[in-house]
Amino acid sequence: MPAPASADIDLPSLEPLFRPRSIAVLGASSSPTKVGGRPVAALIRNRFEGAIYPVNPRSDTIQGLPAFASVKDIPGAVDLAICTVPPAAVMSVLAECAEKEVGGLVVFTSGFAEVGETAPQEAMAGLAREAGIRLMGPNCMGMVNFGSRAVGSFHPAFAEEVVPGAIGLVSQSGAFGGLAYMLARTRAQSLSYMFTTGNEADVDVGDCTAFLADDPDTKAILLYMEGCRNGPKFLAALERARENETPVIAVKLGRTEAGAAAAASHTAALAGEDAVFDSIFRQFGVYRAESIEEFFDVARSCVIGALPTNDRVAMVTVSGGVGVLMADDANRRGLDVAPMPEAAQRRMLELVPFAAARNPIDVTGQFLNDPSLLDQFIELAAKNGDYGSLVSFQGSIGRNPALMEATRSSWIARKAANPDMHFAVSGFCTPDYTRDLEAAGIPVYEEATHATRAIAALAGFARSFRERRARLAVPAPADLPTGLVNELAALDIVAAAGVPTVPARRVRTAREAADAAANLGFPVVLKVLSADILHKSDIGGVRLGIADRAGAQAAFDEILAAARDAQPDAAIDGCLVAPMVTGGVETILGVQRDPVFGPIVMFGLGGIFVEALKDVTFRAAPFDETEARAMIESVAAYPLLTGLRGQPPADLDTLAAALSRLSLFAAANAAAVESLDINPFLVRPEGALALDAVLVTRPATP
Amino acid sequence: MPAPASADIDLPSLEPLFRPRSIAVLGASSSPTKVGGRPVAALIRNRFEGAIYPVNPRSDTIQGLPAFASVKDIPGAVDLAICTVPPAAVMSVLAECAEKEVGGLVVFTSGFAEVGETAPQEAMAGLAREAGIRLMGPNCMGMVNFGSRAVGSFHPAFAEEVVPGAIGLVSQSGAFGGLAYMLARTRAQSLSYMFTTGNEADVDVGDCTAFLADDPDTKAILLYMEGCRNGPKFLAALERARENETPVIAVKLGRTEAGAAAAASHTAALAGEDAVFDSIFRQFGVYRAESIEEFFDVARSCVIGALPTNDRVAMVTVSGGVGVLMADDANRRGLDVAPMPEAAQRRMLELVPFAAARNPIDVTGQFLNDPSLLDQFIELAAKNGDYGSLVSFQGSIGRNPALMEATRSSWIARKAANPDMHFAVSGFCTPDYTRDLEAAGIPVYEEATHATRAIAALAGFARSFRERRARLAVPAPADLPTGLVNELAALDIVAAAGVPTVPARRVRTAREAADAAANLGFPVVLKVLSADILHKSDIGGVRLGIADRAGAQAAFDEILAAARDAQPDAAIDGCLVAPMVTGGVETILGVQRDPVFGPIVMFGLGGIFVEALKDVTFRAAPFDETEARAMIESVAAYPLLTGLRGQPPADLDTLAAALSRLSLFAAANAAAVESLDINPFLVRPEGALALDAVLVTRPATP
Repeated sequence: MPAPASADIDLPSLEPLFRPRSIAVLGASSSPTKVGGRPVAALIRNRFEGAIYPVNPRSDTIQGLPAFASVKDIPGAVDLAICTVPPAAVMSVLAECAEKEVGGLVVFTSGFAEVGETAPQEAMAGLAREAGIRLMGPNCMGMVNFGSRAVGSFHPAFAEEVVPGAIGLVSQSGAFGGLAYMLARTRAQSLSYMFTTGNEADVDVGDCTAFLADDPDTKAILLYMEGCRNGPKFLAALERARENETPVIAVKLGRTEAGAAAAASHTAALAGEDAVFDSIFRQFGVYRAESIEEFFDVARSCVIGALPTNDRVAMVTVSGGVGVLMADDANRRGLDVAPMPEAAQRRMLELVPFAAARNPIDVTGQFLNDPSLLDQFIELAAKNGDYGSLVSFQGSIGRNPALMEATRSSWIARKAANPDMHFAVSGFCTPDYTRDLEAAGIPVYEEATHATRAIAALAGFARSFRERRARLAVPAPADLPTGLVNELAALDIVAAAGVPTVPARRVRTAREAADAAANLGFPVVLKVLSADILHKSDIGGVRLGIADRAGAQAAFDEILAAARDAQPDAAIDGCLVAPMVTGGVETILGVQRDPVFGPIVMFGLGGIFVEALKDVTFRAAPFDETEARAMIESVAAYPLLTGLRGQPPADLDTLAAALSRLSLFAAANAAAVESLDINPFLVRPEGALALDAVLVTRPATP
Repeated sequence: MPAPASADIDLPSLEPLFRPRSIAVLGASSSPTKVGGRPVAALIRNRFEGAIYPVNPRSDTIQGLPAFASVKDIPGAVDLAICTVPPAAVMSVLAECAEKEVGGLVVFTSGFAEVGETAPQEAMAGLAREAGIRLMGPNCMGMVNFGSRAVGSFHPAFAEEVVPGAIGLVSQSGAFGGLAYMLARTRAQSLSYMFTTGNEADVDVGDCTAFLADDPDTKAILLYMEGCRNGPKFLAALERARENETPVIAVKLGRTEAGAAAAASHTAALAGEDAVFDSIFRQFGVYRAESIEEFFDVARSCVIGALPTNDRVAMVTVSGGVGVLMADDANRRGLDVAPMPEAAQRRMLELVPFAAARNPIDVTGQFLNDPSLLDQFIELAAKNGDYGSLVSFQGSIGRNPALMEATRSSWIARKAANPDMHFAVSGFCTPDYTRDLEAAGIPVYEEATHATRAIAALAGFARSFRERRARLAVPAPADLPTGLVNELAALDIVAAAGVPTVPARRVRTAREAADAAANLGFPVVLKVLSADILHKSDIGGVRLGIADRAGAQAAFDEILAAARDAQPDAAIDGCLVAPMVTGGVETILGVQRDPVFGPIVMFGLGGIFVEALKDVTFRAAPFDETEARAMIESVAAYPLLTGLRGQPPADLDTLAAALSRLSLFAAANAAAVESLDINPFLVRPEGALALDAVLVTRPATP
C-alpha cells in the first residue's frame, strides 16, 4: 500500500538527505566514469566539506579513499547513502542502512514502478518509512547541494567542478536535471540545489518545493513536472513558497493529448488534468513557462532583479519601433504602460524636441551626439510617474566603445538610487558590460520582449505576494446523507453552506402544490422531485411560468403522470415548487473531486459556454473572495457579467462570496462529496441564487 | 494631393533604385562619420561594383574620389542619387536629378510629414513622379543591396564590410533596419536587401515586398511594419510573394492601444485596425512574429531548411521530458505529432527495449553506450510514417567530443538522403558543429521549442503555397441605389449577389399583408419597411410569429401606427412580410470599407459573440470558398456550428459559399458600398438564409 496523500511536510527529516555532513556511496566503483564511481569522483573533485565513504565489499580503497564492505562498517554517522547497486540488491542494502540509522537514501537504481514493478518499490518505501529514512528515487539521477558541494548525482554534467547559485531546481526527469544545470551555466547562472525525484516512492516534488521555499540560499524555485502524486502536499508547498515570497516557475508537461500520452509512458506519474494544473498555478501565483529558455530567463530575473512594486512600467528606448514592440508585449501580458506625467514629458521634450515622451519614451538617435541624454531620460522616468519597473532598449550601446563607459556607470548609479524599482536593459552588450549591470541588480536581455516577459512574470509574483489571502477556517463537515439526494435536499445543503438558493418547497399533492405556489407568489415552476430522475426536462418533469392555482394543480398531476410513465421504478418524492425567477446571467458553480488535488471548484457561464466552448476555470478548495473574483474574471465570457448595451452589471460580490463559501463547503466535506453542480446559479444585478443543484455523495471510506 | 491608392506595382521602375550601377551622394562629406560621408565611405569600403559620385559644390575631392558641384556635372548616367542635404535644399537638388534623368532617389533628410510638413513632402513626391524618379523616403535610413554591395544607408551598422545573405528586409523604422542587420549577423545569417521606407512619399512597403518576391537571391521576406498607406498594393505584393512561394514573416506594431498610440506618434503612418491586419496576414499566409528573435529565427529556418511537405512531425529525443515539451508545443501550433507506424516502433524497441517508440521517440541514455543508435532511430523515423519534418533534441551531443564526429556525418548523410524532408536539431552545439549542420540544410536551435515553432511556421507557409486559391472573376458592379436603402431593397441586392435570403414581400395595406402572409404560409413576421428607421424592434416595428390572416391585418395596422408615433418624419414604405424561420445558428456576415484595405468581409456568430466577445474575423475581398471555410473555422465560437448534444452540424458549405459570394459583391462594388450587415444570417442543418440586411451606400466620387 502506498502512503495516503497528505498535506504534511516534515522538513527536519529531509535535513540529512539534502544537507548531509557525511555521504556513503553504496556500490562505489574505482572507475570515475561508471555510475557507481561518478558520485565518489564528483565529491572528491568538488572538495565536499563532509566525510565521503565508498562502500564496496570487493575493494579496500576506492579512488584513493578507504572503502567499506558494508555501510554498517563505517565508523562515523552516515547522513546520506547513495545507492547504485542492482535492483535485486536494493532491499538488503536498505536494511543495512536502517540498521546504521542512515538519515537519507538516494536510489539511482531503476527497474521499479517505471517498468511496472510497483510491489518491490512499495516494499522499499515501506521499509524506509519504518526506519525513518527519507528516500529519493528510485530511478532518479539524485541530488546536488551546490553550497556544500554535496554532488549526489551521476549525471555527466557534474564531471566538472560545480558552481553554486541561487536557483533551486526540482525535476521529475533525471536527464533534465543535468541539462538544466548546463543551461543555467550558459546564462551565467547556477543552482542552489538540484533535486531529481524519479519515481517518488517517498520524497516528491512537494517535499522538495517546501524545502527550497525555506532555504535561505534559494531565490527562485524551478519545477519541471510531468504529473503530481500527492496534490495536497504540493499545494501546501506552493502556499509555503508564497508565504516566504519565493517565486515559483514551472514547466508542466502534458499540456496537449499527444504530450500527455508521452508523459505517461515516460514515467509512472499520473498526469493531472491540465486545465486543473493550469488553474492551480494561477491560484498560487506560479508562473507557467512554455519553453526551457523562458523557464530560465524568468528565474534569472528573479535572482538578479528586484520584484516590481506595481504593474506600471516605463520604457526608455533608442528605437521607436522596438519601444512599440515592447509596449505591445507588455500590454498583452497585463502590464500598464502608463503615460509619463506631463511635467516630466515637457522636461524630456526640452532635452530632445523630437523625442517621444509619453511612454514608450524614444530618446531618438540624439543620444549619439550627447551620451548623457539617455541617463537624463532614465532619471526622469525613475523619478516621475510612480513606475514599478523601468526597461530600456539601448540597441548596441552596450558594445559601443564610445558609449559603454558612460552608460555603465550611470546605470549602476541609477539602480543604486532606486533600489526598489525593477530595472532591466535590453540590447547588444559585451559579456563584461552584461556582468557589471547584472552584478548591480539589472538583468540584461538581448531580445527586448524577453525583458517585458520577465517583468510581467515578476510583477505577477509581486502581486501574488502582496494580495494577502484570508486565513480560512474550514467549517466542520456537514451531516450529509449517503446515497442519492433529491434536488430539494441538495438545495438545502447548498443553502446551509451559505450559498443563496431559490426558496423551494416540497409538495406531495396537487392541493399542496397550489397552496405553496400561492404562498410563494405566482408565477412559479414545478419540477418532479426524485433522486432517480436526472434529466427532468426530457421526461416532461418540469413546468415553467405557472400563473395560478389551477395551473399549479394541473401541472402537479401532469408531471407525476409523466414521471411515472417515463420511469416507473423511480422513487418519486412529489414535486418541488419555486418562484419563477428570470433575468440575470446564468452561471455554473461546481465541485469536483480531483484524483490528484481533491476538492476542486469550477466556475463558468451557463449553457454553450461550458458545454461547447469549455470556457471554465478551476481552483483548489478552499479559497477566499479575492481569489473567487480572480476566478470569475479569468473566463473568456467574463464581459457578459459586466453589463452590456446599457444592462446593469451582474452582482459580482454575491457571486464571489458564493464561490468562496462553496469552496469552504467542498474543503470541509472532501471525504463525502464526489461532485456538486449548481446549474444554473443565476447572477442578477442585485443578488444571485441557485435555481437547481445536483449532489453526488461518496460512500463513507472504511 | 497624394497619389491615389492603387494595386499597381511597377517593378522595372525600381531597378535603378534597388540595383544601381552608379550612385551619386548629394551633400557628400569628407568625414566618413558624418551622415553625408557615411554612404561614400561604405561604398568605398565595400568595393561597390559600380561608379561612386560624391556631389558637393565646396570640394573637388571627397574621401579620395573626384567630387562634383552638381549631379548635372557627372559625366556618366546616374542610377541612384542619395540625398543628404537639409530640408530646404531638397527640392532644388531633386530638380537637378530630374534634369539629369536620375532613376532613383533615396532621401535621408527629415523634417517632412513626420513633423506635420506634408505639403513639402507632397511637392517632392509630385515632382519625382513627373520626372519618373522612384523616391525612397524622406526621413529614412536608405537601402542596401548586399549582393552588389550598394550600401545606400548612413546606419552605423554598415561601418564594417557587409556580408550578403538571403533574407530580404523591409522596415518602416530606419533604426530597426541597421539593428536587424546586426541581429541577423549574430545568428550567422545576413540580408539580401535592406529597405527602410521612412515616410513612404513614393516607394512603400508594398513596392519593396513585391520586388523581393521576384528577387532570385531572396529566400524569405521580413516586414517590420507600423502601418500601411496603400492597402491594395500591399495585398497585391503579398499575393505575388505567395505565388512565387517566398515566405513572408511580419512584425506589425501597434497590436494594443498603448502600442498603437506610440506607433502613431513615431511615424506618420495610419495604423490599420489590428484585427484586420491580423486576419489579412492569415489570409495571405504571412507569419506574424511577436518578437524580434522569433522574426529572425523563422526567417533563418526558411533560408536553411526545406519547407515540410506536410504537417506531420517526428521527434527523436535523448530526453523524454524535452520530447514531451516539444510535442506540447507542436500540438499547440497545429502540427500533427502522429504516432510512428507499429512495425517501425517494434524495430526501435528491438534496438532499445526501454525506448519510447510512439512519438516523441525517446532513444534514452542508451546512445551513450552506442552512438550509432541515434542514427538508426533517425533513419527509421525518416523512412517510415510519411513525416514532413523530423526534429531531434540531442542534448549536449553537439559539443561532446566523443559523439560529435559520428553524429555530424550521420546527420549530413541522412539529410542528403531525404532532401524534401525538413530536418531540425536542437541542443547544445559548438559553432563548428552548428555551421556544418546548417550548411547541409539542417537548422540548429539551442531551445527545443524554437525548433517546433519554426517547423510550424514553415509548415504554414507550405500549406499556404499548396492550397491554390481559385482565380476569382470579380463581377461587374451592381446598379446600386444611392442614399438610404430599405430592408427589402437590401435583401434583394444581397440575393442578387448570390447569397440566399428569406422570401420577403412588401405590403402596403393590411389586406395585402394578410394575402402575402397566406401566400407565404403561416407563421410569418411583419416588420416596418423604412430606410429611416434603424432600430425597428425598439419602436414596436416588428411582430413575430403571426399565425393567421386576422393577426397579419392587425399587426400591419399596429406596426404602422407605432412607427408613425415614434418617428413622424420617417418615410414609411409599408411593411415587409416574410415566413417566420427558426432553428439553426445565427451568424453575422458583414462588409466594411476599411480605410487601408478597402472592402473587408467580416464573419462572426450572432448576438453576444459579436457584441460582447468581439469574436469575429475579417478577410480582404474577394476570396474563394476555401478561404471562407478557414475564416469560419477561425472564430472561437466555431464549435457551435459543428453540432452539439446530438444536434446536426450547420450547413458550412452554404455558409462558405455565401461568404465568398458576398466578398465578390464587395470587391465589385467597392466604390459604392460603405457597409453591409447581414444579421442574422441563419445557418441551418441544410441551407442558410439572410433574415435581415442593412446596406449603407456611399455617394458617387466625382
